Amino acid sequence: MVKVDLSGAIGFLDGAGPDYGAAGVAHRVLAEGTGAGAEFTGWRQLPRRVQGEELKSILAAAERIRATSEVLVVVGIGGSYLGARAGVELIQPTGGPEIIFAGTGFSPDDLNDKIERIGDRDFSVNVVSKSGTTLEPAAAFRIFRGLLEKKYGAAAARKRIYATTDARRGVLKSIADAEGYDTFVVPDDVGGRFSVLSAVGLLPLAAAGCDVRTLVGTAAEDLYALEQRGPENPAWQYAAMRNALYARGKTVELLACYEPSFRFMAEWWKQLYGESEGKDGVGIYPASVEFNADLHSMGQYIQDGPRMLFETVVSFDRPRRDYEIPFLMGDADGLNYLAGRGLGDVSRVAMEAVRAAHIAGGVPNIGVSVPRRDEAGFADLVTFFEVACGISGYMLGVNPFNQPGVEAYKKNMFRMLGKPE
Amino acid sequence: MVKVDLSGAIGFLDGAGPDYGAAGVAHRVLAEGTGAGAEFTGWRQLPRRVQGEELKSILAAAERIRATSEVLVVVGIGGSYLGARAGVELIQPTGGPEIIFAGTGFSPDDLNDKIERIGDRDFSVNVVSKSGTTLEPAAAFRIFRGLLEKKYGAAAARKRIYATTDARRGVLKSIADAEGYDTFVVPDDVGGRFSVLSAVGLLPLAAAGCDVRTLVGTAAEDLYALEQRGPENPAWQYAAMRNALYARGKTVELLACYEPSFRFMAEWWKQLYGESEGKDGVGIYPASVEFNADLHSMGQYIQDGPRMLFETVVSFDRPRRDYEIPFLMGDADGLNYLAGRGLGDVSRVAMEAVRAAHIAGGVPNIGVSVPRRDEAGFADLVTFFEVACGISGYMLGVNPFNQPGVEAYKKNMFRMLGKPE
Repeated sequence: MVKVDLSGAIGFLDGAGPDYGAAGVAHRVLAEGTGAGAEFTGWRQLPRRVQGEELKSILAAAERIRATSEVLVVVGIGGSYLGARAGVELIQPTGGPEIIFAGTGFSPDDLNDKIERIGDRDFSVNVVSKSGTTLEPAAAFRIFRGLLEKKYGAAAARKRIYATTDARRGVLKSIADAEGYDTFVVPDDVGGRFSVLSAVGLLPLAAAGCDVRTLVGTAAEDLYALEQRGPENPAWQYAAMRNALYARGKTVELLACYEPSFRFMAEWWKQLYGESEGKDGVGIYPASVEFNADLHSMGQYIQDGPRMLFETVVSFDRPRRDYEIPFLMGDADGLNYLAGRGLGDVSRVAMEAVRAAHIAGGVPNIGVSVPRRDEAGFADLVTFFEVACGISGYMLGVNPFNQPGVEAYKKNMFRMLGKPE
Repeated sequence: MVKVDLSGAIGFLDGAGPDYGAAGVAHRVLAEGTGAGAEFTGWRQLPRRVQGEELKSILAAAERIRATSEVLVVVGIGGSYLGARAGVELIQPTGGPEIIFAGTGFSPDDLNDKIERIGDRDFSVNVVSKSGTTLEPAAAFRIFRGLLEKKYGAAAARKRIYATTDARRGVLKSIADAEGYDTFVVPDDVGGRFSVLSAVGLLPLAAAGCDVRTLVGTAAEDLYALEQRGPENPAWQYAAMRNALYARGKTVELLACYEPSFRFMAEWWKQLYGESEGKDGVGIYPASVEFNADLHSMGQYIQDGPRMLFETVVSFDRPRRDYEIPFLMGDADGLNYLAGRGLGDVSRVAMEAVRAAHIAGGVPNIGVSVPRRDEAGFADLVTFFEVACGISGYMLGVNPFNQPGVEAYKKNMFRMLGKPE
């Protein structure tokens, strides 16, 4: 499970602590299913539900993909790709097909690039869409399905398409049934941004070579532990602190990490928090930075700009494999004082140095740490951020499980494109 | 040159227009060199200065790199890599070596990944650092120099190292002179974030296969055109509008683009504006989104969250190569109403639909467009954002050309690492 460190933030609360009373109320509402959007809290049981037959069929499909494909094209947008992409990039499994994420936009240049990247390699497609009517992935699926049929013929193409969609209804479900695709279920009681531990995320992760049994097992244990009621629950700590900071004018949260492989984990987190809390005119703006790189781009603003920021810094206790700074004869660059030290150690010192500088500059700092950048660490982070998001949203007074604002551009777009009806 | 469209923002100013009087004053201060930080405005002459001998030697070095290397490792942080990375990813030249950017942090996992990615391919190194003492790139350079020497021997390694650094002094300059590296100059009168049109950006761009003659030529013309004083100057329009919106409580600017290849252009822009304006407790927070993807993650927040946002949307008039949506027999997915239309056309409609939805939701919209995603378009964007940044910073009342806050973490870090002296 994650560890949360509030020592760099507590000093910004003027003597008052985080409001654990309110966190407890919010957690009870979440756990008892009495709050707004309670019909979309099935994610709390996903790991336990998926273990068993469903996981077996996911693993079997992943094996088929790995045996037949050098590339897996995952077609999906928003919650239908972000969790999988976050996991694949964070865990970086090796030996599986390359995963190419498509269907996130209409850029022809981007599509042409992706098709070129596939080249003449063998590929399969996992199309992920609850309804099948979201236009970006629907258009991309039509295109990639056509490419598969052209390359393999209609019959063989069908065996290379895996549809993750509604269990009973919708355009994609109808197509999948008619064509005989392998299908996987997007559960009814789980919103897209909470769906990574369903087949939505697990099939691409397994195909890429992640150990999803460990991932799901860890997530199940984590969710059990996160049910604990009390201020020692890290989800309470994070939810209560970020609401306390927001109430004190900290309107932008910077999710920071010192690992470049975390980039899409931050994008996943942005959707989770931005879409859950950004409504009714309220909500912290979720932003992200990659350190050390962005210390030399956004560092100036963080240190000296308006004091409306706080940082949440995710760290991993140990690197996978350290790298020792070499000795240089003559010491022309003056770095021999570091020779023999591991970069992992230097990175940790840098993190502490930045933390102290930013706190001194007026930026509250929340620490979130997990043991390693692996399947278990990914499960720890996903479950922690999900539970804390539910609690935090209820503390804020919104329905954390709807997303009414996403429809506005779609309505305009379908009208302007002349969609029939 | 870029075109700026303020029609989606002007309605948020309550009848008042942008303050072109103040923009004019700021522009005069910039042009006459009478403002704070004037000693760092040499970027305004960079394209003209670099044309001639310097460009020839950059092109010659790029040719040698291309002839001898399958990979070019660019070692640099902040302004020493962001412009080059932005350009390489936006322009996507083909046929040159792969460019790997290193030295942006201490993550051993990330370093190991990069070394593995090089594999046994031939590589060269371009180390970019004004002083040579910034620890992230200095440590990485020591490591990659060691790898070169191990692979090629000390003498041959020297011919594979290109140092872009101070013309006269500093640790890296001393090493380069002692070892006999090819050297290129980081000018004294140009800050890192404004340096992409010097050798800092041009050498990696040329090595990657970009047509830097066109790039520099276009930039020179653009900078000449941007000297024009008046409200028809797009830099005035952008600078005046963003300051007007900031004065009305819009504290977060979202730079949006519908091309995934724009991602690092947005990162370059974040440094340019964040580091130039984020000081003395003021400054717009620079954030970015990739559309359509992020319409399904940040879209909810943008549409319905706190009204502290405005959007600046960068677009390209034409795609490089369009892609026609195919016809599907039976129309099972219901998309035949789009069959035969280009994705580029659909993308443009989507952009208009989003624009209307966000403006209706209370998010002011500034449009910035250039003809194409190529060298000229890159030059247009770089020069426009640079000139507008200088004007905007002076309008805000800060010194747009310093970055005092970047030192804070470095001091802590060197002390905690036990640096001698």
